[in-house]
Formats: sequence, structure tokens, C-alpha cells
Amino acid sequence: MAQLDSLIANLSQVTIAGTGLLGGSIGLALRAAGYTGRIVGVGRTQATLDAAKGAGCIDVAKTDLPGAVRDGGDAQLVILATPLGAFEPLVKAMADVEGPVITDVGSVKAGICDLARKHLAQPGRFIGSHPMAGGEQHGPQHARADLFQGCPCIITREPGDDDDAIATVEALWRTLGMKVIDMPVAEHDRCVALISHLPHAAAALLVDLASRGGGLGIASTGFRDTTRVASGDVRVWTDIFLSNRAAVVEALDGFADSLATFRAMVEAGDETGIRALLDGAKQTRDQWIG
Amino acid sequence: MAQLDSLIANLSQVTIAGTGLLGGSIGLALRAAGYTGRIVGVGRTQATLDAAKGAGCIDVAKTDLPGAVRDGGDAQLVILATPLGAFEPLVKAMADVEGPVITDVGSVKAGICDLARKHLAQPGRFIGSHPMAGGEQHGPQHARADLFQGCPCIITREPGDDDDAIATVEALWRTLGMKVIDMPVAEHDRCVALISHLPHAAAALLVDLASRGGGLGIASTGFRDTTRVASGDVRVWTDIFLSNRAAVVEALDGFADSLATFRAMVEAGDETGIRALLDGAKQTRDQWIG
Repeated sequence: MAQLDSLIANLSQVTIAGTGLLGGSIGLALRAAGYTGRIVGVGRTQATLDAAKGAGCIDVAKTDLPGAVRDGGDAQLVILATPLGAFEPLVKAMADVEGPVITDVGSVKAGICDLARKHLAQPGRFIGSHPMAGGEQHGPQHARADLFQGCPCIITREPGDDDDAIATVEALWRTLGMKVIDMPVAEHDRCVALISHLPHAAAALLVDLASRGGGLGIASTGFRDTTRVASGDVRVWTDIFLSNRAAVVEALDGFADSLATFRAMVEAGDETGIRALLDGAKQTRDQWIG
Repeated sequence: MAQLDSLIANLSQVTIAGTGLLGGSIGLALRAAGYTGRIVGVGRTQATLDAAKGAGCIDVAKTDLPGAVRDGGDAQLVILATPLGAFEPLVKAMADVEGPVITDVGSVKAGICDLARKHLAQPGRFIGSHPMAGGEQHGPQHARADLFQGCPCIITREPGDDDDAIATVEALWRTLGMKVIDMPVAEHDRCVALISHLPHAAAALLVDLASRGGGLGIASTGFRDTTRVASGDVRVWTDIFLSNRAAVVEALDGFADSLATFRAMVEAGDETGIRALLDGAKQTRDQWIG
């Protein structure tokens, strides 16, 4: 298990806006790492907040984000863990708040970083984060203290960011067992389109096509794994595709080119070409897994 | 665990040509189900045969298929469990063999069924099978007695097939814990293109594209699962694509159309369209898993 960083241990309060799978798991993981300060969950629906409290993810449930943060004082960290579509009102509601370090868990970084720069009183205390963990389940009832363990977390620091804010956000993810990676916003959004958003679209479209073609009755473990992500939260993923349009379109175009090349190989019975493509992908993936 | 069917219990010998993951697992599963007759493994390379014997998959290792089958007498079952590309010489070598029931484990059925009709002395004793189980690992060292448990197995019986041959092959897969499904050859090949061959191509192309785009460094569990099958045996999968060309091309074309439609939605910011697509895929998949 990861170790509690002293920067985190010294916080009087951690405020988590959005107590679903990710927000709830952050609470559980902080407790598991030994954090003894107050964990406040903020949400819109009492049922989710109650479930998060019942599962031990948070100590206190509130529905007013700026109020909850003001109560917690300066020595705290605020984590926005809602779907992307909820970021704008949350950031605007936080416009006048000064003191706390703020981060998020959004899968696309351009939008939230723009919002922070535009609306926050202290934009240098916002450090964008993208913990690459999760799953196709959602809700605090599926939260797990080890959800983040061993996974990468990208942070998108920018010129002018406060050093102590950067250090605190890095300490948060390290405390949760993650490998912190620094990346510019645009590169992050381009890369996640390739390794997350495009694969998600492919999975959903494969399910749709197989279902229309009547093949699901004989589908087995390979299909189950290849399409696992298609069972993910629809609201979260709709937001992601809408928030990362240019990079997703670029990834879809690259994929369409790849498919056209492969189609030509299959139609021509090009054994050498097919074998080389499969062999390259296998070697690349095996090396990546290793 | 599944129960040993009396039709299988009464066989004096089961001959498995090809003792890799699938062939080896058949041997282990037969033993686990209580089969006490002789299990003969036939292969080209002594190392694989030795590994299969060492892992308890087979009792006896031979390199001559028709010889091994003649030694075993009439009351036996022969299972062709090699990659598709090795089927033609095996079926030709068995041309004069009479008595045994013969089946296979091939992922594409048109080719092997044609070969059986054309070359075997008793084509009615050949019943094509496709056990939908496996994994990205290969070799008898990965064989497992429970590999087939709960998975579907398609058999492609045809007019003129011997009733006792059909019953024996059905009994084999039921003994291994599988759910036997009857399907015409052409429908099988079209369906597996949709639920197995196209997803495999998509996985390999996603790995290739992500790798070229420099995104692998931040890829996580979603990418790992979506692309798992791309680590599969390259020879096996090259054979599959070459053996099922027409159906694979048709599936690739359908997928290209789906991608183009989705691309237009993303580019236009069509929230309703994206949400409907993702929601339909999620509901379909969740229902299928359930």
C-alpha cells in the first residue's frame, strides 16, 4: 500500500465534489493510507451522498460546494470528481474561494484548465489531474481503496502554477499509489483520444454491430473483454466525447485509415501483410504489458 | 464441473492432433471429468508433445496421425486442434481412415467442412466444431481443465451426417462443460467475423495506432482489456483472417460505416446521437453479460 505523504497528512480537510466511483474511492484510499483529517463529500443527490457515507468514503455530506470549502479553511484540498459536464457550474461557484488547492479527475484537460484560468480567483492553485483508473461500474457502492494503486496519473501543470499546489496534488496521487506523469494539456488530450476515447468508441460500435448482425448469442470471453468499457457510464462518456472533439475526430480518422489498409490486405489474401501487422501489435502490446 | 457423458466414457481412445492451449486443455478437461480411456496427442514438434505429456494433457505422444488413429481402433474420437492452416494435410492424411468420429476446433468452418466432404472416406462421421474458448496465451503449459466451462460451442452438422457422430461430438463438448449450439456453416462464419475476427482486428489496429501516436505510456486498464486479444497467437490469427476473407471484409465494411456515422456525430457535437449510441451499446452489453 502507498504511504501517506506529509503534505496530505497536514491538510485539515479534503473536499470531494462528486462521490461516485472515483470520488468515493479517493476517500477510501485516503483513509486506507492513514489520513486522519476530515473528508467532506459534496453532491447534488442525497442518495449518492448517503451511499458514500455509508460505504465509509466520506465523513460529512454537503450539497453546497463553496460553503463546504469555506467551512474547511485554507489548509485543504478540493477535488472535482464529477462528470466533465458538471465542471463549469462548480468552477464558477468556486470563483471567489481563496486558499485551498484545487484539482480534478477529468479525462479531458483542455476544458477544465480553461475554466480554472478564466473563473478562479487563484488560477495558480488549480492543477489539472487525470488519474487513469476506474472501471465500467459506477457509484460509491463500487468504490475501492485500491482502485488507483499502480495506475498512472497525469497532471497538467502550467507556467504560473503555485509550487505548493503542484506539490500537494502530486502528493495526493502518490499517496493513492499512483505513478505521477507530467504532460502538457494538448498532448494529454491527443494521447487519451488514442488510448481511451477511440477504444471506447470502438467497443460501443462493436457491440452495436454484433447485436444488429445477430452474433451476440455465440460471443464469448474475447468479445466480453474487448467491449468491457462499453458498459461504462453513459453520461460520463458522452461528456468526454463532446469535450475532446478535435482529438477524437483525429483519432477516428487515423483508425479509419488503419482499417482500410487492413481490409485491403484481407481482401487480397496478403498473408505477409496480415502477419506483419498482427505480429507488430502483439510484440508492442506484450512489451507494454511487461 | 461437467459430467462425463456415457458416449465419451465408452471411447477406447481420444486422439488430439495439436496439443497447444486448446488441444492440451481438452485432454485435461476429459481427465478432470473422469474419462479413463487413452488420450493420444499427435504433433509435429517433440518439445510441444513432451510439454503436453508433462502437463498431464495426454498419455501418449505420437507424430503420425493416421498411424495413431489406426492403433486406437474404431471406438474413438479424433479432434483436430491445430491452427487452421494445418487442417488440409491432416485431413488428406486421414483420407482412408474409417470408423472414428472426427471433429475439429477451428474458428472458421467453411474450409474444414469442405476439406472433410472432399477428402474423407466417411464425410458423415466428420462434425465441425468451434468451441468458443481460449485466451491470448498459447502452448500446453497454459492448458486448463476449466478452459471450456460455461462457454458456447458451435457445431455445424450437415445433411447426411451420421447420428452417432453428431451425438458423440455433442457429448464431448457437454462433458467439457460447454453449451452446444447448432448453426449452419455460413451463418457461423458470418457471426464469428462480427464477434471475434473484427474485434481482434480492431484490437490489433488500436495497439498499432496508439503506439505510433506515442500514447502507450499513459494507457491503463481500459486499454489493456480492450486490446487483450491482440496478444493472441499470430499464426492462428493470420490463418483465421485468410480463411474467412469474405465475411471479415463484410464485417470491416459495416464497422467502417459505423465509425463514419459516429465521427459525424462527434464533429457536429451531436449530444443526443452520441448518448443514444452509447446508451444502446451499454444496455445491449449489460443484458448480454447478465
